[in-house]
Amino acid sequence: MHTDGGIDGFDCQTCETTLAPEDVETTCPECGDPVTPVFDADALTDVVAAETDNATGIDRFAPALGFDPAAGLVSLGAGGKTVIDAPSLAAELGVDRVRIADEGRNPTGSAVDRELAVAVSVAAERDAEQIILPSTGNAARSAAAYAGRADLESLSYVPSRTPFVEKAMTNVHGGELSVVEGRYRDAAAAYDDADTDGFPVGPASPFRQLGAATLALDLFGQDGSSPDAIVLPVGHGTRLAGFFAGLQALEAGGRVGSVPQLYAAQPAGCAPIVTAYQNGGEVETWETPDSVIGPLEIPDPAVGSRALDALAASGGGAVAVTDDDALAAAVDANAATGVEVSATGGVALAGTSELAERGEIEPDGSVLVVDPLAVAAESDILRSQLMSRGI
Amino acid sequence: MHTDGGIDGFDCQTCETTLAPEDVETTCPECGDPVTPVFDADALTDVVAAETDNATGIDRFAPALGFDPAAGLVSLGAGGKTVIDAPSLAAELGVDRVRIADEGRNPTGSAVDRELAVAVSVAAERDAEQIILPSTGNAARSAAAYAGRADLESLSYVPSRTPFVEKAMTNVHGGELSVVEGRYRDAAAAYDDADTDGFPVGPASPFRQLGAATLALDLFGQDGSSPDAIVLPVGHGTRLAGFFAGLQALEAGGRVGSVPQLYAAQPAGCAPIVTAYQNGGEVETWETPDSVIGPLEIPDPAVGSRALDALAASGGGAVAVTDDDALAAAVDANAATGVEVSATGGVALAGTSELAERGEIEPDGSVLVVDPLAVAAESDILRSQLMSRGI
Ligand SMILES: [Zn+2]
Ligand SMILES: [Zn+2]
Repeated sequence: MHTDGGIDGFDCQTCETTLAPEDVETTCPECGDPVTPVFDADALTDVVAAETDNATGIDRFAPALGFDPAAGLVSLGAGGKTVIDAPSLAAELGVDRVRIADEGRNPTGSAVDRELAVAVSVAAERDAEQIILPSTGNAARSAAAYAGRADLESLSYVPSRTPFVEKAMTNVHGGELSVVEGRYRDAAAAYDDADTDGFPVGPASPFRQLGAATLALDLFGQDGSSPDAIVLPVGHGTRLAGFFAGLQALEAGGRVGSVPQLYAAQPAGCAPIVTAYQNGGEVETWETPDSVIGPLEIPDPAVGSRALDALAASGGGAVAVTDDDALAAAVDANAATGVEVSATGGVALAGTSELAERGEIEPDGSVLVVDPLAVAAESDILRSQLMSRGI
Repeated sequence: MHTDGGIDGFDCQTCETTLAPEDVETTCPECGDPVTPVFDADALTDVVAAETDNATGIDRFAPALGFDPAAGLVSLGAGGKTVIDAPSLAAELGVDRVRIADEGRNPTGSAVDRELAVAVSVAAERDAEQIILPSTGNAARSAAAYAGRADLESLSYVPSRTPFVEKAMTNVHGGELSVVEGRYRDAAAAYDDADTDGFPVGPASPFRQLGAATLALDLFGQDGSSPDAIVLPVGHGTRLAGFFAGLQALEAGGRVGSVPQLYAAQPAGCAPIVTAYQNGGEVETWETPDSVIGPLEIPDPAVGSRALDALAASGGGAVAVTDDDALAAAVDANAATGVEVSATGGVALAGTSELAERGEIEPDGSVLVVDPLAVAAESDILRSQLMSRGI
């Protein structure tokens, strides 16, 4: 990883300093707070504005991420621009335009593939033998896939409630799983207690934010037409913080006119970032996490402060929705649009509905809803929602 | 659907005639045999050679498929070129290059999305109210998704052994399911007996072949560098026949130097096309279908004769593999390459291994293996294979 192509380093707001990439492994070595990528906007602009050759998705952005364009990134072809218009939802919500970014179409079925592609590439470059992480499931599967490709070991701590497909595929990719009885916080605690010298690629990893930034580059780097608002389901805040860093660089480089308003959506049963945003305070640990939507039941977000910054700086906001509303929104969207919206994506859709009702998204506004996850891992809870309707 | 942009019509070999698109609904109205798309190679070449604008995947080819470029195809963004290099498999098989086409990254998780996008578009154009089909599961899900988007009803006949995720998502998309006790042939029999005037979009549909042809356009239309051999898992033969039609048009238009050798791989427990190829005879119904790989347990292929033609005309061949070998190949590929190879894709991989051993694929040859399916629906049988290894 080098800094002559697009990335200046990683910024710690607490220490008011920019760290060189080689000095960063996970959080700030001085204060322990999360750090965020800082792009060289001009260099990044050159990369995203270049004519598309054969490389698609995030491979195209390798130089802007600090990697050699030829062989630098461990690649499974993550990324690309998979955005589907949803005119029926726009009509229903009473806004001008709704589009869905179907990020479940990544190599292992989630947007975290963008993140793990970069984090595992850094681990390989630093001659790590093993990568380690806590995960609700989809990052474990992605980490195992990329580690297998890079000939590294992976060890993931996941809660027992993790869907079968995520656990099975982690093993099928050759990844080791530590399945911890309980919920995500129990798995995270076991990870914290683990005695290992593996390279950390969990949600606090700034390299995962770097990978998440490529969603902004894919969506807006080429055509520059950005919507008024973007709604993302938020757990740790890693995706939101990285996405915002990418948008800021696109704005600084003149690729988008202005950063769209960013909105975080969380389940009401575990909404620490939404609550902090509404109270104007710090993100505090959610004491009684309770949501059927596992990927978003994150009581202690790893990058919460940076996620809050992104909401405020973009002039966006935050919204919490019930599990029932999220599941209903996902099921309705599957039927009306054909897009395979996950329950996790349903949180963002239900949030969008709420924001439109509140007037925060205006009738002449356009909105992009990010669904980070393939539906397969959540098809059981969507089917159950249908059952509750007597179908 | 019109014939001034890229498609001349549909060819019945038995009647030695080319039928106009408007005269075709499913098989030949004269003799009942399967028909195959015939492209206007020059018009198609113009479309595939055009500079890529915002439209990606099959939407880009709409004019070549007989649809208006703006609003003609019911679209979920199917297609694109998702090909991953697998150098570790090339080394293991002792061939120069192995690549995997990861078609599971389509909107509902399988290559049939290309097919249903076109077939449902035709149904909508003809003012059908309902589409109907027999399916092993993934086409039911895809049909429900596209029908929902086009505001049509869908009714699918599937066997009870269909994986949960396929049944659940068919319903979540608002599709109606008739779950028939037993195997695919029982579901197909129930479909044949059904009294409905729905528009047929099953595997015999020539419009599904038309959609399948776009895989060839995506893979080779732009850069023209085709491999020596392509190995596809084959059930009904729909994908193979359509793919071959696309390749022929690319060759006629000068976009590829020559059509690569096409190989069909089937599970040994249900291999009617492989057996017919080896015996040099007609495709006969497989009396005792027995494979854990549901999408390929097709005893009476709808487009078998046309699939055989494609194998012979391309100078390729056919290979049958055991379920065990297919599952092992899939699991090993998941671990070594990171690509989420399904059990169905594993049939093609194990077949490739066998073809390399036989010398049909030579050591200096390059091969493309098509995996038509996302792994999620088959993660259980892959995980079981791991269990048989004591993991
Ligand atoms: Zn610091
Ligand atoms: Zn005929």
